[in-house]
Amino acid sequence: MFRLYSYFRSSCSYRVRIMLGYKGLEYTYIPVHLLEGGGQQYSDDYLARNPVGELPTLEILDAQGEILSTISQSVAILEYLEEAHPEPSLMPSALPERARVRQIVEIVNSSIQPIQNLKVMKRLQEQFKVERPVALEWAKYWIERGFQGLEKLLQKTAGAHAYGDQLSLADIVIVPQEFNARRFGIDMNLFPTIQRVCHTANQLPAFANAAPAQQPDAP
Amino acid sequence: MFRLYSYFRSSCSYRVRIMLGYKGLEYTYIPVHLLEGGGQQYSDDYLARNPVGELPTLEILDAQGEILSTISQSVAILEYLEEAHPEPSLMPSALPERARVRQIVEIVNSSIQPIQNLKVMKRLQEQFKVERPVALEWAKYWIERGFQGLEKLLQKTAGAHAYGDQLSLADIVIVPQEFNARRFGIDMNLFPTIQRVCHTANQLPAFANAAPAQQPDAP
Repeated sequence: MFRLYSYFRSSCSYRVRIMLGYKGLEYTYIPVHLLEGGGQQYSDDYLARNPVGELPTLEILDAQGEILSTISQSVAILEYLEEAHPEPSLMPSALPERARVRQIVEIVNSSIQPIQNLKVMKRLQEQFKVERPVALEWAKYWIERGFQGLEKLLQKTAGAHAYGDQLSLADIVIVPQEFNARRFGIDMNLFPTIQRVCHTANQLPAFANAAPAQQPDAP
Repeated sequence: MFRLYSYFRSSCSYRVRIMLGYKGLEYTYIPVHLLEGGGQQYSDDYLARNPVGELPTLEILDAQGEILSTISQSVAILEYLEEAHPEPSLMPSALPERARVRQIVEIVNSSIQPIQNLKVMKRLQEQFKVERPVALEWAKYWIERGFQGLEKLLQKTAGAHAYGDQLSLADIVIVPQEFNARRFGIDMNLFPTIQRVCHTANQLPAFANAAPAQQPDAP
């Protein structure tokens, strides 16, 4: 049994929603609004679960509903769920292939998403006294720059999915980033391989059900 | 046999240098200067190895010196080396403990380092026409903010090291981030647990030998 602290539009929460769905794991959805009241992720209640004040957080419960473990950071959660629930597998077995999948995951997780997320865009507006469109330009710049490298890499690695013909953790992180890219007005025709693997993955129920618009806290 | 593309002051390269040293793996050091000529990481030669244009990259060679595999993204490299060379171990065996170590790794890898790195500071100066001290304030803000959360987490998890009494991947990513923090003038007395585990880890030869000042490309 799981409890997921999530915000419908948080791309890191979106990753974990896909993962839980693909593994067939049921969970209770606890919405945490990233903007209301300065951000519910900074409430004492939430900070007690994750002192960094970021989404998502996953609580693992026993049959009585007692918390066994609390994990934050989406990639740590993805790796945990893959180890704890290895079927259906989302990682190749050969070590160099596992490394390549993780390389793709980390391009999104560390080289793109952190620089374009909400807290960074808010801070830009505060520190540099700029309006939201300027912060949006910043976000677009980093997504496009990251996608230029990712597209080249996927041209070598992709089959039906981002890494070969098997769905992997790579697809699980790319799809939410592509969602952000589209939301920010990026022309995905510039990145045909990324666009194609996202389109393919989005046909799967786990991906469709995890989409922001399908969440209980979507407006 | 390994070949590491590194820059002495790159904290992500520093992580991999510690890892290789701790696992007792010898490697050839290939310096890539992040500033000279607009950044050697953007040369055609380097981009052919890593299309994202970031350090580090690790090449795995066979006995004849032929490249077997090329991996980028420091956390993907750390995970690969841990899987390929499991002794001495840098990960606990219990799944919730592995998740906690990865959570700590990702706080540094995705919530702190990407927002304060060189390319982001350069872009701030370009897009907002500000001087380097303003970009430095930005970097300090994000490191301090991230360390506030990390300190609280480590107060629960740390023993002799960041996660319990065993050295782990957590220490390997925290030490280079603490190096950046000191370089940017952050008062580490504000973060006594982080400071303590870094001090302990830095007594080990693998950490001392991986320090920026010890690298062949250090001025």
